[in-house]
Amino acid sequence: MLAQAQGVTENKPIVGMIPQTRKRGKPPVNLVSRQIHPENTVIKVEEVLFGGPQFVVIAGPCAVESQEQLLATAREVKSSGAAVLRGGAYKPRTSPYSFQGLGVDGLDLLTLAKEKIGLPIITEVMDGTELAVVEAHTDIIQVGARNIQNFSLLRQVGQSQKPVLLKRGLMTTLDEFLMSAEYILVAGNPQVILCERGIRTFETATRNTLDLSAVPILKERTHLPVVVDPSHAVGDCRYVCPLARAAMAVGADGLMVEVHISPETALCDGQQSLSPAVFQTLMDDLRLMAGLFHRVL
Amino acid sequence: MLAQAQGVTENKPIVGMIPQTRKRGKPPVNLVSRQIHPENTVIKVEEVLFGGPQFVVIAGPCAVESQEQLLATAREVKSSGAAVLRGGAYKPRTSPYSFQGLGVDGLDLLTLAKEKIGLPIITEVMDGTELAVVEAHTDIIQVGARNIQNFSLLRQVGQSQKPVLLKRGLMTTLDEFLMSAEYILVAGNPQVILCERGIRTFETATRNTLDLSAVPILKERTHLPVVVDPSHAVGDCRYVCPLARAAMAVGADGLMVEVHISPETALCDGQQSLSPAVFQTLMDDLRLMAGLFHRVL
Amino acid sequence: MLAQAQGVTENKPIVGMIPQTRKRGKPPVNLVSRQIHPENTVIKVEEVLFGGPQFVVIAGPCAVESQEQLLATAREVKSSGAAVLRGGAYKPRTSPYSFQGLGVDGLDLLTLAKEKIGLPIITEVMDGTELAVVEAHTDIIQVGARNIQNFSLLRQVGQSQKPVLLKRGLMTTLDEFLMSAEYILVAGNPQVILCERGIRTFETATRNTLDLSAVPILKERTHLPVVVDPSHAVGDCRYVCPLARAAMAVGADGLMVEVHISPETALCDGQQSLSPAVFQTLMDDLRLMAGLFHRVL
Amino acid sequence: MLAQAQGVTENKPIVGMIPQTRKRGKPPVNLVSRQIHPENTVIKVEEVLFGGPQFVVIAGPCAVESQEQLLATAREVKSSGAAVLRGGAYKPRTSPYSFQGLGVDGLDLLTLAKEKIGLPIITEVMDGTELAVVEAHTDIIQVGARNIQNFSLLRQVGQSQKPVLLKRGLMTTLDEFLMSAEYILVAGNPQVILCERGIRTFETATRNTLDLSAVPILKERTHLPVVVDPSHAVGDCRYVCPLARAAMAVGADGLMVEVHISPETALCDGQQSLSPAVFQTLMDDLRLMAGLFHRVL
Repeated sequence: MLAQAQGVTENKPIVGMIPQTRKRGKPPVNLVSRQIHPENTVIKVEEVLFGGPQFVVIAGPCAVESQEQLLATAREVKSSGAAVLRGGAYKPRTSPYSFQGLGVDGLDLLTLAKEKIGLPIITEVMDGTELAVVEAHTDIIQVGARNIQNFSLLRQVGQSQKPVLLKRGLMTTLDEFLMSAEYILVAGNPQVILCERGIRTFETATRNTLDLSAVPILKERTHLPVVVDPSHAVGDCRYVCPLARAAMAVGADGLMVEVHISPETALCDGQQSLSPAVFQTLMDDLRLMAGLFHRVL
Repeated sequence: MLAQAQGVTENKPIVGMIPQTRKRGKPPVNLVSRQIHPENTVIKVEEVLFGGPQFVVIAGPCAVESQEQLLATAREVKSSGAAVLRGGAYKPRTSPYSFQGLGVDGLDLLTLAKEKIGLPIITEVMDGTELAVVEAHTDIIQVGARNIQNFSLLRQVGQSQKPVLLKRGLMTTLDEFLMSAEYILVAGNPQVILCERGIRTFETATRNTLDLSAVPILKERTHLPVVVDPSHAVGDCRYVCPLARAAMAVGADGLMVEVHISPETALCDGQQSLSPAVFQTLMDDLRLMAGLFHRVL
Repeated sequence: MLAQAQGVTENKPIVGMIPQTRKRGKPPVNLVSRQIHPENTVIKVEEVLFGGPQFVVIAGPCAVESQEQLLATAREVKSSGAAVLRGGAYKPRTSPYSFQGLGVDGLDLLTLAKEKIGLPIITEVMDGTELAVVEAHTDIIQVGARNIQNFSLLRQVGQSQKPVLLKRGLMTTLDEFLMSAEYILVAGNPQVILCERGIRTFETATRNTLDLSAVPILKERTHLPVVVDPSHAVGDCRYVCPLARAAMAVGADGLMVEVHISPETALCDGQQSLSPAVFQTLMDDLRLMAGLFHRVL
Repeated sequence: MLAQAQGVTENKPIVGMIPQTRKRGKPPVNLVSRQIHPENTVIKVEEVLFGGPQFVVIAGPCAVESQEQLLATAREVKSSGAAVLRGGAYKPRTSPYSFQGLGVDGLDLLTLAKEKIGLPIITEVMDGTELAVVEAHTDIIQVGARNIQNFSLLRQVGQSQKPVLLKRGLMTTLDEFLMSAEYILVAGNPQVILCERGIRTFETATRNTLDLSAVPILKERTHLPVVVDPSHAVGDCRYVCPLARAAMAVGADGLMVEVHISPETALCDGQQSLSPAVFQTLMDDLRLMAGLFHRVL
């Protein structure tokens, strides 16, 4: 096993925590800070543990499209070793004319998939008015990159009992990312998983630029689990696997990967979805790496 | 060993090569393109091979400061397994009032270090007028990020017999990066090593944002070796090791890392330099990883 | 008067409209496009007209803080020639510990200011659950930069009878900006005013980088009015006036400027607020410029 | 005339000068700083004065292509009121296969144009080895955006007697821009004109993003003249005129604009070049604006 696999370099004392909020003598109140909560927060979703030795792989289609598509994909990703099934029922889309997701029907299919296949579910909530129905059908609530500073929504999921996976926005600094998580914690929900998914830069060879340095910095500053979504970052299935391996090597607590039973016919983001065969190979690779990095899959 | 460690995902046929230059029926002339040169270019520097199975680690101080500093650092990095010694004699600095390097005296110290310690040398050339003297003292000529589109300099190093390590600029797209390499190849020098070293983005938690997705994309588009410099990218020694491990995992052919015998007294970039002890730990980690990734150190 | 003050250069035929959505033979449906609606949309708010010859100046404090602060500021900006009073009752803030606005009390103060001073009101809505109460107290509904891709909110304000001022996000391309406006139009509300307010770049000398080239490009692609907010873009009152003048010169239909009766004691964004005296000078300058640019204030 | 046309807003005392270099008690040595040189530097090029009331328009083709092209364009821009003729003899191009300029033949044509038409000349130097010959044929030496941190070249033009126009790089902060100018001043040449020409951002609707807020900030921090190049910034002739007008309104000391006698056949950057007729209209507009802004053309 590697000497330093989970920590940052020990060259110097750790400094640079996020600035604390101090008001007239009151104690600092950054609930996300590792300074006031040195141990990793471990978040339990059925049998899955985020933030401990387990390297949690979340996989599934970008959007729920049909019962066949979802069940077939779920079966494949489970047999390859994924721990959580992803699938969007409400899809944020740049254009109002793009496929917007199946809505409640999609949520019902996710519940069906959980019953049939047995994986816990993660799906996105886009608005507070949908929160109750999403909560009823999911094990983890996803807040998407476009809602990273939708503070109303952050406060609402902060009142949920369910864990929240919070995606970094395209333009969000790490300080802002942690402050958005703070909105959820301060509202009462300590179960937040952070997800790096690429930032917007001048480079157009990739959809976004995956910022893997965010992982050791976040792991140093906060006790919350940090996972990486390479699919949305690079936007091209050809580069997902090398970046997924790099995410484990850099110290992430898990991955979120798009897999589609038939990428070329996907209604959404097919270009960045892995086929089940490629996903199987990725999982084999990660399993080989895991021991070195003090991880179990 | 991993199934796909050196390749990109096989999900789809490879497309998206850099656009070829076509002029009135003449054949395309992108010498850097893997389409016209499918095999990896392997570049030999004494016993070191860039672009083959060897994972080449270049290490040493940002700037050559003194005989003691250079020899002591060189001894340490060699004993930890570095293959090439780096050290700047001509330093590009934002301010004219910052330390600008020892110049020819620094080059002489590099030659001395090679004689005493036995590692091949890489050092930067900043201007064509210094090229002859730099060439006489180095095994690899480095062209820095600020000179990525200094086309006169690119043409001049293109006439050298020595290999060139070309660093991506802060604002350079991958297409532009390859076109700058093309200037060197078309001038007659086929020995170019590409180096990803971070791009400038809105994020200020790191000095730059290391773009590790550049590695699989470059490896797909070109036959030239690709190495990663995490030190300049993150600018903080605490995050260098995790990103160095990620660079191997993502498929890089090697690393360039700043090591200083005494980081806290360095004249240049001390904050991002590893101590010899931390570098030793990093090399131990990379040696453990290497087998998995079809690499030898 | 200038020859070209309101148009783009006539050098070449106009091309490059945003791509139309075509589905199986149906006609294109980009309601925002000037191609299908060549005349300017003119939006009437009481006596104020956005999108015609009037250069509309919206001014007021970042946040409503108290009756005295709001009424005093409103009186000042009206006497200097502002046409609309701005003031935030719900404030999106990066940190949950920052002042979040007075909420409904702030809305009541805005209604009071309208009664006493006589200017129409613009204030921000952050969430659909607040939309009814905000609508009841405002003449123009503002959707902030952080909600530019909060599609649920866009659909909800699309069902309002009130005009909407939509701010460009920090990392929103012009195509995405127009598509967000399209969400509002397609939901039934044709009264959308676009607001350029700076994008996030690597430059830290300003809070954001005001992208004035967005104005002629938007004016070419869409029939909707386009205003500029220099206060949030530069984040420093010293640079607001030159950029406000430039906004008129580049062809904007108006301005949104922060003015505070006492910038040094403001609860929010004091550094970027103009004092009433400086605002008066700015308005004098704009009035002198207006004739040249075919505008009336 | 406007109250504040040339200054920044008077709301607060001016702070935020660039940090001074202090070494063990020595006085600060930022020669570019307005703190140590409060008056504007005025640079005289034949009868033209940069940095005073004159609004200096530099115009001409991107590249010198032929005697006919250059003389015809020069005649047109002079008759419209341009004060300086631009034209590239050495062209920095991303690809080695693009037209690289006519070199010395181009310089000879510039000298011929000066004799025949009577405008002073500006042309770019790309490398120190060409400096002597460029100096002999030009009145102003241009250092291009790609060479903003080519410190060897900066030192070399710092030893010239000719004024230098220094273009901001695509990813250069204002602090770095001023430090690059400092290299020239400290080498002995006080005649430096700064040129804002767009920075690289995520936005692809324009070639670059013109950062007009750079103008008041630079004018506040330094005594050097500041001009704006809208042609390279937007990369599309349709948007050049509105941004040129905005540059005057924001307080620039002049403009650099690409004009080509026949944009559609230009060998370089034809898309962003104005036709002589459009340039004439722009100059008419600027002349109308000038009085308001305390300027003469």
